[in-house]
Amino acid sequence: MKKILTLGFILSLFLSFPSFAQQLKVNSDRLHESLMKLSTFGKNSQGGSDRVAFSEFDIQGREYVMGLMREAGLDVSIDYAGNIIGKRAGQNPNLKPIAFGSHIDEVPNGGDYDGPVGSLSAIEVIKTLQENSITTQHPLEVIIFTNEEGGVIGSRALVGSLSEEALQVVSNAGITQYEGIKKLGGEPDRIPEVARKPGDLAAFLELHIEQGANLYNEKLDIGVVEGIVAIEWWEFTFKGFANHAGTTPMNLRQDPMLPAAKFILAVNETVRSIEGRQVGTVGKIEAFPGAGNVIPAEVKLNLEMRDLSSEKIWDIYRNLEKQAFQFAEEYNVELDIRHIDVASTPALADPEIRKVIQSAAESLGLSTLSLPSGAGHDAQEMARIAPMGMIFIPSKDGISHSPQEFSTKEDIANGANVLLNTILALDQKFH
Amino acid sequence: MKKILTLGFILSLFLSFPSFAQQLKVNSDRLHESLMKLSTFGKNSQGGSDRVAFSEFDIQGREYVMGLMREAGLDVSIDYAGNIIGKRAGQNPNLKPIAFGSHIDEVPNGGDYDGPVGSLSAIEVIKTLQENSITTQHPLEVIIFTNEEGGVIGSRALVGSLSEEALQVVSNAGITQYEGIKKLGGEPDRIPEVARKPGDLAAFLELHIEQGANLYNEKLDIGVVEGIVAIEWWEFTFKGFANHAGTTPMNLRQDPMLPAAKFILAVNETVRSIEGRQVGTVGKIEAFPGAGNVIPAEVKLNLEMRDLSSEKIWDIYRNLEKQAFQFAEEYNVELDIRHIDVASTPALADPEIRKVIQSAAESLGLSTLSLPSGAGHDAQEMARIAPMGMIFIPSKDGISHSPQEFSTKEDIANGANVLLNTILALDQKFH
Repeated sequence: MKKILTLGFILSLFLSFPSFAQQLKVNSDRLHESLMKLSTFGKNSQGGSDRVAFSEFDIQGREYVMGLMREAGLDVSIDYAGNIIGKRAGQNPNLKPIAFGSHIDEVPNGGDYDGPVGSLSAIEVIKTLQENSITTQHPLEVIIFTNEEGGVIGSRALVGSLSEEALQVVSNAGITQYEGIKKLGGEPDRIPEVARKPGDLAAFLELHIEQGANLYNEKLDIGVVEGIVAIEWWEFTFKGFANHAGTTPMNLRQDPMLPAAKFILAVNETVRSIEGRQVGTVGKIEAFPGAGNVIPAEVKLNLEMRDLSSEKIWDIYRNLEKQAFQFAEEYNVELDIRHIDVASTPALADPEIRKVIQSAAESLGLSTLSLPSGAGHDAQEMARIAPMGMIFIPSKDGISHSPQEFSTKEDIANGANVLLNTILALDQKFH
Repeated sequence: MKKILTLGFILSLFLSFPSFAQQLKVNSDRLHESLMKLSTFGKNSQGGSDRVAFSEFDIQGREYVMGLMREAGLDVSIDYAGNIIGKRAGQNPNLKPIAFGSHIDEVPNGGDYDGPVGSLSAIEVIKTLQENSITTQHPLEVIIFTNEEGGVIGSRALVGSLSEEALQVVSNAGITQYEGIKKLGGEPDRIPEVARKPGDLAAFLELHIEQGANLYNEKLDIGVVEGIVAIEWWEFTFKGFANHAGTTPMNLRQDPMLPAAKFILAVNETVRSIEGRQVGTVGKIEAFPGAGNVIPAEVKLNLEMRDLSSEKIWDIYRNLEKQAFQFAEEYNVELDIRHIDVASTPALADPEIRKVIQSAAESLGLSTLSLPSGAGHDAQEMARIAPMGMIFIPSKDGISHSPQEFSTKEDIANGANVLLNTILALDQKFH
């Protein structure tokens, strides 16, 4: 709880104190210990984690996690897609399960917090219920997804959107998804059988580090995720005329580098000129032939935009497209634009679940911020078949996918407690 | 002769006509035929020339050229650096030779005119003297240089500036300069012995296509080269902070792409804002890690500047450097600049020889333009040991190093005639 204490707030604290005390809480020490233990599987000499999906480290980490799940009384199995599923019966067998979880695989030289925080918190939630002899109305399901970092493979399988072609893609461990899933104990040929249908789950929840600096910079405890943003990619190719950089006078050039430079500045200015949290990035640029003594024939660059609203993305895009053609004309070059089909549609969090997360955080005395997730998560896939909610905790300096990734023990416990109390509240609410 | 005919010009034409008639001229048909014959060695399916130095095509072309040289009465030999040297005695054995020539090797998929025009014109000059039973006062020397396109190798050897390390560089034919020179009949270990000393030659002349569009666009016949420009290279590295393109808000980014874009525009604006023929080019750019979904950690780009004055280049550079550091500061990124050691100092043409070329062209009724050479040539090396002069002819649309390279038969004959008459005039003048 990092809010500045005002008199009114102190008063409200006293008035609401009894309700704080009633909130069930996880064992913060045990949770943190399990996180540190998991981090030993794949720790490299730079302090980073090499627990990429399908590696020996991944398999060791999964064994460790499955052990914890069994200790917590879960009925553990590996589905055909390699997802680890831990089931706990509810009091009312007619209710659909409330599912929650995350992933334990990492990018190469990644950190210790990314997916593990949500995965181990999910298990700690079950352990806490077990210790307190609480049985929810709904069945509960902890899911540790297969290869999130390599393309949200496990969650795509669970919602029936994983294609056969995707299984042939080579993942970070150097083997195909198909081979990797077999290595985890899955049966890739039977993946279509694991697909859940809309309505099969009462809700899906995921706790995750923010991977951005909004919470950290504003010293807030909990992010209530509004949704996972849509992502759109385009490739812009400015086409001029390759010529000798020594013999071609400045005024006779058709140099595609110049409109490309103007466009890069326009992306930044235009995206920032409009209110909101949308982002636009040129992360990749190349000149062809790309020699210091040749005026380029072509300059190719990549534009990415993200926002919760696809409509807003496309509005900004049309503005940028117009500017790009003006720049091309100004420098007498051609422009080709290709929309790249890696788009992900926005996945909005369920408004009811957002309210429940918000209340759970408040009842624990935690400060909150509603914000979109700029990064992709398994929850974005799960939102296709179930009401979805996501909880963020602060990530130091907003760093993620790096050995420098860090969240405090207190922040992690806060996240786990919000997850626990959200599940308990949803259990009462969602029938 | 492409000038628009005015009354005054027509009058001057009549008045000067007798002197036109006195000018010795080459056999334009024979010269053009030899050029077309040489172009068959290495012609590829795209119409381009693959006669790269040290290839079988290069060796076939050299055999053909040496045959022509012998027919023209030259005493032909291959020096230790693989240069073809053709000698013709003068009337006065105490005079130093007047040397002239060019190269017949091409870039991969190059054109038919580049070096061959000057090489075959040099031989045609000798043939013309032979047919007209003219023996100059000075000895004459035709030089066909080894591997011009791969780093003016032959001319560097001739002036003693070819290092042992340079001999180990792999050339376009896939073998080292050392191996290539052996293949041509040279003795690479004895290259130091071929170096000429300042004063060993009375003059060096080279005829070449312009490789730019100044003559072609202005419909002028002959370029009187002022000198070969200095070239300077720098590598600029803007260093920001790599971050997630989805989760990092626009106002928290340290994106090196933005100052790099501003710098590219500044190079163009600054170089053009100053009077003169200087050029500045950013031909190469790369972002690291270079992924569409990552704000780059670094953007590297290459700046090249060329001008006849090194001082002017460095003045402009200091201006650009200042701007670059301002842009870096504006976007909160670091900037590293590295001066790359590929600089070539300017090689000025001898003022006396420029005047002689100018007079020779005028006496042939040809229009002229004084201009720098933005491209490098063997003449730039030869200028270190001898008074140097270069003659340019128009190149269609300024295109070179391409199958589209083209000069008319008439333009080529004009160039050869100016070369011939320049040699004859220098023979009288330079004692």
